[in-house]
Amino acid sequence: MTRYETREVHLARRPDGMPVTDDFRMITTSLEPPGPGQVLVRNVLMSVDPYMRVRMAKLPSYPHWELDQVMDGSAIGVVERSEHPDLPVGTVVSHRLGWREHAVLDAGHASTVRHIDGIPLTAHLGVLGMAGFTAYVGLTQIGALTPGESLYVSGAAGAVGSAVGQIARILGAGRVVGSAGTPAKVAYLVDGLGFDGAFDYHVESLSECVATNIPDGIDVYFDNVGGGHLQAALDSMNQHGRIVVCGAIGEYNALRGQPGPSNLIYVLTKRLRMEGFTIREHMAEYPAFVARATTWLLDGQLRSTDTVVSGLESAVDAFRDLLAGRNIGKMLVRLSEDPTPPPDRGAASA
Amino acid sequence: MTRYETREVHLARRPDGMPVTDDFRMITTSLEPPGPGQVLVRNVLMSVDPYMRVRMAKLPSYPHWELDQVMDGSAIGVVERSEHPDLPVGTVVSHRLGWREHAVLDAGHASTVRHIDGIPLTAHLGVLGMAGFTAYVGLTQIGALTPGESLYVSGAAGAVGSAVGQIARILGAGRVVGSAGTPAKVAYLVDGLGFDGAFDYHVESLSECVATNIPDGIDVYFDNVGGGHLQAALDSMNQHGRIVVCGAIGEYNALRGQPGPSNLIYVLTKRLRMEGFTIREHMAEYPAFVARATTWLLDGQLRSTDTVVSGLESAVDAFRDLLAGRNIGKMLVRLSEDPTPPPDRGAASA
Repeated sequence: MTRYETREVHLARRPDGMPVTDDFRMITTSLEPPGPGQVLVRNVLMSVDPYMRVRMAKLPSYPHWELDQVMDGSAIGVVERSEHPDLPVGTVVSHRLGWREHAVLDAGHASTVRHIDGIPLTAHLGVLGMAGFTAYVGLTQIGALTPGESLYVSGAAGAVGSAVGQIARILGAGRVVGSAGTPAKVAYLVDGLGFDGAFDYHVESLSECVATNIPDGIDVYFDNVGGGHLQAALDSMNQHGRIVVCGAIGEYNALRGQPGPSNLIYVLTKRLRMEGFTIREHMAEYPAFVARATTWLLDGQLRSTDTVVSGLESAVDAFRDLLAGRNIGKMLVRLSEDPTPPPDRGAASA
Repeated sequence: MTRYETREVHLARRPDGMPVTDDFRMITTSLEPPGPGQVLVRNVLMSVDPYMRVRMAKLPSYPHWELDQVMDGSAIGVVERSEHPDLPVGTVVSHRLGWREHAVLDAGHASTVRHIDGIPLTAHLGVLGMAGFTAYVGLTQIGALTPGESLYVSGAAGAVGSAVGQIARILGAGRVVGSAGTPAKVAYLVDGLGFDGAFDYHVESLSECVATNIPDGIDVYFDNVGGGHLQAALDSMNQHGRIVVCGAIGEYNALRGQPGPSNLIYVLTKRLRMEGFTIREHMAEYPAFVARATTWLLDGQLRSTDTVVSGLESAVDAFRDLLAGRNIGKMLVRLSEDPTPPPDRGAASA
């Protein structure tokens, strides 16, 4: 019976602070062939995401990764061997078995990715994938943004943040403002993504800078960073404002022990709502989102932006770069070449 | 034209930390007689409440008191002179012009208090008044407590807290636990009000103490105290738990500048909702609450508990005692004697 040799990345120990190379281990392993109802997938692209830092720790009520086991995460790949009629060889699928070059999985754990001219494969892990969907659910369900309301997003040049600003605009937000960590990112938010305002958060007083950029106050704050960013936003929140707690990348390497904002009293005095969520609990709405977002991408209202590095051996560095804010848009690791898109029907019939 | 001489308490300056006597001034003033549509009320009882400490400061989005003006707050009084047919002399009314011995107000700003045998007048400012209503709205609207869920309330022996625990039990809560600052209060919560558990929060590790008293975790945390109490509750919150931010009496004398909880990351990882509210925005539901709570009081499910001091000259001390936690139940100031209840109809016809 043929076995498939492949590589995967294991969590070797729980990181203390910023993860280092030795917290991970690259393993060469061999996979059993797919059994009945299963497929063997060659991964093409894998995602690295901030939430993964949280899964490296053991926290209550949050699923953590086991040591000496392969990690997981969103990925896209091509079916190379199939034991299921719905997913023939050559099918492009998205699934949850990232951090490895090949995966064997039940067909039910894979979703077919349909090729659409003009939409790159990377978008399916970014603005059309969990990042874009997180932005959408956060804005519509958690933040309940209504037309005309102002939106402020921290970590705005990241995968989720860049989608938040763009989707807020599409949904009719009033002022859309974001913060990011480099002048290049700030320029990109305004010139590339159409934010009304953006600023570099390396300022003396973040609170004053937020107030200057959003002089009429914040109705919805989409928090990807936490810490001092949350404190500055609280100062500028309008009455009955909503704080969408999506991430706290500024705190993930500490996770616990950093003092919280000293102005949390505003939750009371301004009657704010602050709510955390994880996207996995909202998957029922994902198909509807993909349909809407595909239209937005094709008509140019929404842009897909990615930072892509190559090779599974670069995945840990890509993850560290992500935590250090070195990406613009979705941070991805390319594990193998894109499959050839299906032939254009018009061309084939000519 | 007769004018009415009376006394009232002014805010003389904004307190720095715990309010001191010199932050206030007792003024003797004379009132114009009631004009058309107005009534003159002799106040019988006035309320002192934690939120008043916040109104003494100038905070964004929260109505503050002006200096050298009389403060206000809930009160109950008797109409002594009337220029409105709906409120004849002798009518008992509740209204918002506390911190004074007499008040002239438009009839539309007063609500008739109906005498019910077995319900003392004090209850109308406590468990049937804004304190009880705040507990009810916080549990039902903000916390969305469902039967079987566990409830933890800090400041549980106060006016709102003591109503929270009792109403949660009536609404079908599972475990009901409260914290308070003295052994006498703790005993009262369990023996007097039927809490499942209570503890003195002067412990070495509040977090461990909360966990021990609510071993299966908290579904709804009703926060009256803030600060370290919020931090301890966050440690024990269950997934999808709700934090009702009703007060932060532990922080009112600082108001800003104290570090927030260092485990706010749990809002994200446990998918919590945290929401502040003020009762004035929910008044449409007040009559329905009074109807329900009156039944609960009469059938003994709900107890009215008060700490009453006498004389407007004691009002500032009563307020300071409230902030220092020296009350059990609702803290009230008696300004004059209760009016005679209307004669019993059965007796009159006998």
